[in-house]
Amino acid sequence: MNFAFCLLLSFCSLTLGQEGLLETEGTTENEPCFPDLCKFIKEFAVMKVKLEAVETKLNESESQVLVLKEKGEALETKLKETESQVLVLKQKALKVVFSAGILENAAIGPIKKPKTLVYGRVITNVGNAYNQNTGIFVAPVRGMYYFSFFYHAGGGHPVRLRLIKNNNSVVEITDHKTLMDGADNGGNAAFVELQQGDQVFVRLDANHHVWGNGYITTFSGFLLHQI
Amino acid sequence: MNFAFCLLLSFCSLTLGQEGLLETEGTTENEPCFPDLCKFIKEFAVMKVKLEAVETKLNESESQVLVLKEKGEALETKLKETESQVLVLKQKALKVVFSAGILENAAIGPIKKPKTLVYGRVITNVGNAYNQNTGIFVAPVRGMYYFSFFYHAGGGHPVRLRLIKNNNSVVEITDHKTLMDGADNGGNAAFVELQQGDQVFVRLDANHHVWGNGYITTFSGFLLHQI
Amino acid sequence: MNFAFCLLLSFCSLTLGQEGLLETEGTTENEPCFPDLCKFIKEFAVMKVKLEAVETKLNESESQVLVLKEKGEALETKLKETESQVLVLKQKALKVVFSAGILENAAIGPIKKPKTLVYGRVITNVGNAYNQNTGIFVAPVRGMYYFSFFYHAGGGHPVRLRLIKNNNSVVEITDHKTLMDGADNGGNAAFVELQQGDQVFVRLDANHHVWGNGYITTFSGFLLHQI
Repeated sequence: MNFAFCLLLSFCSLTLGQEGLLETEGTTENEPCFPDLCKFIKEFAVMKVKLEAVETKLNESESQVLVLKEKGEALETKLKETESQVLVLKQKALKVVFSAGILENAAIGPIKKPKTLVYGRVITNVGNAYNQNTGIFVAPVRGMYYFSFFYHAGGGHPVRLRLIKNNNSVVEITDHKTLMDGADNGGNAAFVELQQGDQVFVRLDANHHVWGNGYITTFSGFLLHQI
Repeated sequence: MNFAFCLLLSFCSLTLGQEGLLETEGTTENEPCFPDLCKFIKEFAVMKVKLEAVETKLNESESQVLVLKEKGEALETKLKETESQVLVLKQKALKVVFSAGILENAAIGPIKKPKTLVYGRVITNVGNAYNQNTGIFVAPVRGMYYFSFFYHAGGGHPVRLRLIKNNNSVVEITDHKTLMDGADNGGNAAFVELQQGDQVFVRLDANHHVWGNGYITTFSGFLLHQI
Repeated sequence: MNFAFCLLLSFCSLTLGQEGLLETEGTTENEPCFPDLCKFIKEFAVMKVKLEAVETKLNESESQVLVLKEKGEALETKLKETESQVLVLKQKALKVVFSAGILENAAIGPIKKPKTLVYGRVITNVGNAYNQNTGIFVAPVRGMYYFSFFYHAGGGHPVRLRLIKNNNSVVEITDHKTLMDGADNGGNAAFVELQQGDQVFVRLDANHHVWGNGYITTFSGFLLHQI
């Protein structure tokens, strides 16, 4: 029996030799083969320990993966917030800018009725909020806008220009009639909050005049920031 | 002994049959049970290989987790930098804007002492840096600011307006007295760097005058950017 | 033989006792040791199940790591995009601002040839795009710029100032000669798109004059936004 069991182990040793399992170095048929089984049991014990180590490491790895997942989700959330803030900053950089001068090289007025000045020589019109055919700027978005306007006029008639927001005067320029001074200049400017669709333009009062000229009687504006 | 050992393995085979371990198909009490042990040893060898494969894969997985951790930390650091840059960009978008006109429809001056002009008709005052009771703008933050001011005045007295930063003149407007010209206009503007708390206002010189009017004698400013 | 095998297992039990393997509580030399082998086989079955569980968990963990890797790469890509957008926003915040006044407290002109006005009193010059020795502003980048200029002049000669972009007039100010009005003021402003290297300055026409003064005849500009 001893011999037969030994044979079995020897056979197994031969077939499994390549994996280095149960190798009985120097064993002969006459020597007892019990140490092989013992070695086998030892190997099993080693493997058990290894498996436990693997289990422990795997658990650690799993919990690290979990932590990474949570961190990744937190990062994703923060990145989304940052992206939307960048989008808002980019939108705030919406460009609305114009400058234009009166096209005709002639007197505008005096006439009996107030008149919206049409600045037909466009210098700049980013965003096309200013209409060079009507002289009217229409706010494309709610925001804080800046407008400036300058005039030149002869002294033969008084001057009164009003920067109008919808139907209300924001700032004005005025000059008296004088036969002693050939011409005068003036300007004004203001920051105005506008709602989307608000109209801003320069109105010449009835019985007043201004000298048109693409270069000296001008109207400018820009969107400082959205609200 | 052989028989007894065989019995044991058969018993074990029966109890462990559900896991497919050491099943001895067609084994009878009379047949030798050594092949079962051999199969067991083979299974052990297979398991050993599997365990080694698992160990290898786990090591790879662990090193990937480590790489992910480092990448995650690098991403976190970069995201924090980006977030703080976005915050700076948002802060740079701090809004300080005002426009105001002199409220009284009357001459201001001439008087014996210089006088800070009080523009009591507020058109815009985002950030409340301009005080409509004193006429003084106080810089809420260090930055680059723009100021413009325009006047209208009759010809009976000279005009001198100074844009004052703390106690120093930045830019000015002046006009002579003339009995021949009923009125004049003027304006000026400048970009000025201000420290937090710096005061900016328009001063009328002694013995000079200006025509107050909510619409034509105005003062405007805005924060171009923080520094 | 039975006795010898039992001895072997007992010996193994003793040597592996610390790992808790094959412990035969209460076993004596006279009791049969087969239950130990049975226990061993059971333990092996348990271990096999554990290994399978470990394999399953490892596969899950590996696929989660793979998902994390992909997510991490996606986050990295998005973060890079956000970073470059923030960079663009920061670059858009490039600061180019200047304000200067004519240094000499004297008349400039009239002379026979047109003359570039040199505003030698620098109030602000962020970015050094304005040259106080030549009076010329050179656009450091392509963008939308704003320029304003104001003058004061006596009435003895006419005034004509042109805001020149390269060789073209953008906006102008003009005033007549008058012996009846001691002095006049004027200003103008415009938003102008400039290419990098474009030159902007104020030109005084031949036979015209302006009153130099660091405070009242001024030139300002700033980069509204890059294009």
